[in-house]
Amino acid sequence: MDKSKCKCGKANLPNTVNLFELKFENGLIPAIVQETESKEVLMFAYMNEEALKLTLRTKIAHYYSRSRQSLWKKGETSGHFQHVKQIYYDCDADCLLLEVDQEGGACHNGYRSCFYRTIDGKNVGEKVFDL
Amino acid sequence: MDKSKCKCGKANLPNTVNLFELKFENGLIPAIVQETESKEVLMFAYMNEEALKLTLRTKIAHYYSRSRQSLWKKGETSGHFQHVKQIYYDCDADCLLLEVDQEGGACHNGYRSCFYRTIDGKNVGEKVFDL
Repeated sequence: MDKSKCKCGKANLPNTVNLFELKFENGLIPAIVQETESKEVLMFAYMNEEALKLTLRTKIAHYYSRSRQSLWKKGETSGHFQHVKQIYYDCDADCLLLEVDQEGGACHNGYRSCFYRTIDGKNVGEKVFDL
Repeated sequence: MDKSKCKCGKANLPNTVNLFELKFENGLIPAIVQETESKEVLMFAYMNEEALKLTLRTKIAHYYSRSRQSLWKKGETSGHFQHVKQIYYDCDADCLLLEVDQEGGACHNGYRSCFYRTIDGKNVGEKVFDL
């Protein structure tokens, strides 16, 4: 698979859902982002209701940036969009898992995944673009 | 692979690490838990420093339960321990990713993974034990 290209497979995702069952904490729900094909965990972020609704409607991942306190369309400035294929929620309904096809890299440091270091500080990540 | 058994492969994990680089928020850091072999995302939890240190020392996953406000050795009552093989941290140093070999199921509802439902409410999970 050419990781720089989106596979653009069909999303198995509804346009809207009844969100009543999900538990947002202070308006946010954590979201784990995993690549559909490789199953690599790419990143971790938060969504508010608006970000989740936009994600469902557009099939492009949107999040809520806690540092910038604003809605955030992933890839809007970098072009590294995430095409969302499925979303799962957990037993406690307080965490989401997104399956995505990632364009370019998920990490703003140029890595495929944000989890490019082991706990003892070794860099084991795959660099996919230069800063 | 017999998923009910631990493979007990060698952990590639240090006994202790310098935690100064990690960012704990109100004493906690989110932890994503992924199975080593299948790469399935199993659950999401939080760790405090004590839980992380115990995890590194014992190679068995420990978390901090926000609802019970106490340290939590995963599997202590169920026997469904998680043998930790590696831990990664993300670019912002505010989220962990654990690679584990899971005994039994990660979910207290009897599923292999806590993410057993799609966002439109379909149950797609693998039941591995009865309640």
